[in-house]
Amino acid sequence: MIVARTVADLREALRSRRSDGPVGLVPTMGALHEGHASLLRAARANDSTVVMSIFVNPTQFNEQADLAAYPRTEEADLALADAEGVDIVFAPDAAEVYPDGFATTVSVSGPIAETLEGAERGRAHFDGVATVVTKLLLAALPDHAYFGAKDAQQVAVIRRLVADLGIPVQLVVCPTSRDADGLARSSRNTRLTPDERSRALAIPRALEAVKDAAAHGVTDTGALRARAVGELEAAGIHPEYVAFVDPETFAPVAAVDAPVLVAIAARVGATRLIDNTVLGGA
Amino acid sequence: MIVARTVADLREALRSRRSDGPVGLVPTMGALHEGHASLLRAARANDSTVVMSIFVNPTQFNEQADLAAYPRTEEADLALADAEGVDIVFAPDAAEVYPDGFATTVSVSGPIAETLEGAERGRAHFDGVATVVTKLLLAALPDHAYFGAKDAQQVAVIRRLVADLGIPVQLVVCPTSRDADGLARSSRNTRLTPDERSRALAIPRALEAVKDAAAHGVTDTGALRARAVGELEAAGIHPEYVAFVDPETFAPVAAVDAPVLVAIAARVGATRLIDNTVLGGA
Repeated sequence: MIVARTVADLREALRSRRSDGPVGLVPTMGALHEGHASLLRAARANDSTVVMSIFVNPTQFNEQADLAAYPRTEEADLALADAEGVDIVFAPDAAEVYPDGFATTVSVSGPIAETLEGAERGRAHFDGVATVVTKLLLAALPDHAYFGAKDAQQVAVIRRLVADLGIPVQLVVCPTSRDADGLARSSRNTRLTPDERSRALAIPRALEAVKDAAAHGVTDTGALRARAVGELEAAGIHPEYVAFVDPETFAPVAAVDAPVLVAIAARVGATRLIDNTVLGGA
Repeated sequence: MIVARTVADLREALRSRRSDGPVGLVPTMGALHEGHASLLRAARANDSTVVMSIFVNPTQFNEQADLAAYPRTEEADLALADAEGVDIVFAPDAAEVYPDGFATTVSVSGPIAETLEGAERGRAHFDGVATVVTKLLLAALPDHAYFGAKDAQQVAVIRRLVADLGIPVQLVVCPTSRDADGLARSSRNTRLTPDERSRALAIPRALEAVKDAAAHGVTDTGALRARAVGELEAAGIHPEYVAFVDPETFAPVAAVDAPVLVAIAARVGATRLIDNTVLGGA
């Protein structure tokens, strides 16, 4: 497994491999868990060459404390990547990604980037995501790039910019990976105390309650939202949002008659968690 | 010569040609003149495959009247491209470049994009340039892209975004092409009346006066600027700016002790013209 620290080294490592077949990229911020491993396995099954990037992107953090606290576990990450058959790890430092004089931003406008996570974390969050993902995609020029469904809005923003700029890559969205108790896997979960972790299970329970109600014919998203909020409040969780939106445009929807994304964000103690599910529609 | 109207057709036309050697792209807004032809010849001398794009990009026009009046001469443009040995013309319509739902902007910040043309034409101008050039470069993925030195600030903005986003292309900047009387060639020159055209010659004369004074040891840019303004005012031209800036950062400079870009913008009648030269420095 090659570890490339610069774009030049990454491109050099890829040059001779492109003729072998498709290249897959799995962008990560490190602190790898089983969710990342599932993305790596999807890439390994699909692509001749698997590239995984590790970069804790400072520009997408709206809170310096969150950036400082973000777990950094490169040694373990490299071991996991190696075990999953990754060919090339691209792990640049911040000066490689944002050299002196850096002045360019890729920005997506509209509800897709400005509501929910965009509203809670501020406009700079998705600008940071859009810019760094553009750079990673242009550095590796992969045939496929793999993202987890847990970050549904991030995926929608990336889908938009890839289509709009015409970046020649196919996005592959893999199902959210969950622990046995249902909690969506996240690098931030390691910060939860045992009590917080137990309370956090109200988030997947709330999504299940919504799915269950929808399966029993409830279509009004106001009524469905009340079920979710009830589950959360019972665990002492006051959500930042429980939203029912169009999965592509993120426009709010009032009734479930087409696929609807149900997205939740909530703080449990000091840790901010997000999760979502899609209701199939009529 | 192939005329591609969609990105898919452009990529299809390029697919089999990449193995022949390097690909060159000459982006244009059509209304081709000898200046464009000199870019095409530079590409033809350098690259195995020459692509020329024609797209009058609505998002970079700050005045609807300027956009409406911009000359559109596709038939003549295709004939000139063919005569210059262009292999592929990429001439998409606006719906191909900006389909419904388009929501992504590439933006460069700082003096390079916010002063001079950025100040006179508004922030949206270089956002429009940066976004469309990113799209054209990603559509063709050329080895080389050719631009004229006349649009010095545009070149600086594109150089910045190409470096920042890591677009794998080398920029080639070709000297400003001039008519025999010294006027920089521009598609907008066709709008000048004979009297305006004659007065417009004060612009290259002003640049020559500055070069001459600098060659005779004048280094104070205030004094040099006064010479240029004197030439312009004598022809009844009140410039929007006569600027002395660092050619890369566009920071203003007070004395000529390193290369300095001298840039002029002025309206002659209803037509806005720009021109520039570089003083070599000590």
